[in-house]
Amino acid sequence: MSAAAAAPAVVAADFGLRAPTPPAWFEAAAGSLETLLVDHANCEKKAASTALGLMFAYADDTRLGLSLARLAREELRHYEQVVRLLDALGFKYTRLSPGRYAGELRRALSTHEPARRLDLLIVGALIEARSCERFRGLAPRLPPRVGGFYAGLEAAEARHTQLYLDLARDYAARAGLGVAARFDELARIESLLATQPDPVFRFHSGSPA
Amino acid sequence: MSAAAAAPAVVAADFGLRAPTPPAWFEAAAGSLETLLVDHANCEKKAASTALGLMFAYADDTRLGLSLARLAREELRHYEQVVRLLDALGFKYTRLSPGRYAGELRRALSTHEPARRLDLLIVGALIEARSCERFRGLAPRLPPRVGGFYAGLEAAEARHTQLYLDLARDYAARAGLGVAARFDELARIESLLATQPDPVFRFHSGSPA
Repeated sequence: MSAAAAAPAVVAADFGLRAPTPPAWFEAAAGSLETLLVDHANCEKKAASTALGLMFAYADDTRLGLSLARLAREELRHYEQVVRLLDALGFKYTRLSPGRYAGELRRALSTHEPARRLDLLIVGALIEARSCERFRGLAPRLPPRVGGFYAGLEAAEARHTQLYLDLARDYAARAGLGVAARFDELARIESLLATQPDPVFRFHSGSPA
Repeated sequence: MSAAAAAPAVVAADFGLRAPTPPAWFEAAAGSLETLLVDHANCEKKAASTALGLMFAYADDTRLGLSLARLAREELRHYEQVVRLLDALGFKYTRLSPGRYAGELRRALSTHEPARRLDLLIVGALIEARSCERFRGLAPRLPPRVGGFYAGLEAAEARHTQLYLDLARDYAARAGLGVAARFDELARIESLLATQPDPVFRFHSGSPA
């Protein structure tokens, strides 16, 4: 039990997240279940779309193509599961503006190759790592039906993090780039977005303002 | 055997295609297997991306979202299968410029709603119908390993055609639009693109110029 309670910090450290999600975010999430689930459905759709974007941009890399196609299929299945869960809980899948997180991370990407491709893969890993950490923290705080579902998603996000990290390391080696320093820069930006005061509650938002 | 030979025209009529693929296209395809397969892989990726685009554009329509997410997963799985087949046959998945087909169909779309949404669904149905007709015609003309795979894809494309048609009719009824006249206009454009002389051989190209 004490090992399980300590686990989120370990995951954060494992995947290189620079700061854990603030406890106030988890409290806000438990009180905003409908918004959390609608935004979560959007995130799964966006994750599939991002993977497809990489498949188009780097079309001749079949290892990347095959592994991200499988990842996108999994994100789409999660989207379907979240939409059905919304319906089962009597919530409505309404339009919701995106939070600042993905857009700000996108602004931090290098604009030129080969640096951009490495950045995209590192940011992919960081987003999956944050999702993994939040699913783990959310699972025991939400109604059992949602919490159980989220506990199952945690493992998928961990696999996705590992895949993006593997692709990043593999590409960096081929392109003669270093990973560690750039990972550290992007992870610092990610941790600010996930922890600094944020006026809009979303799946990846910062500390409730 | 005679029933099987007559089948492509029946499928074309069933799904509203206005003209069958010219025999010369099938002959060119059999002689351009690597280009056919690479462009086919791109088409599967594009089909998944188009479905995702509709899911984003009409995010509050959960029936559309759930059914197109499933369709996109299937297209992605086909993409993976084609990429593995390319590798097994010793071909390379190189970059290939797109043909005129999808771009020209896109130019025919209405630019305003609610007409645009209906057009997107009708064009989705037409592209899937053409793919279905070509897989059926290709299956007996290609090496068994590819032909057998294509015979299996025919059924999937038929289901996808039906899904897009159902979504189009469903939406038209809700929006107070007619389907038949617009379907006819777009089907005529589609049939020209699939049959008129075309300098570039692709999965959806016209008659070899």
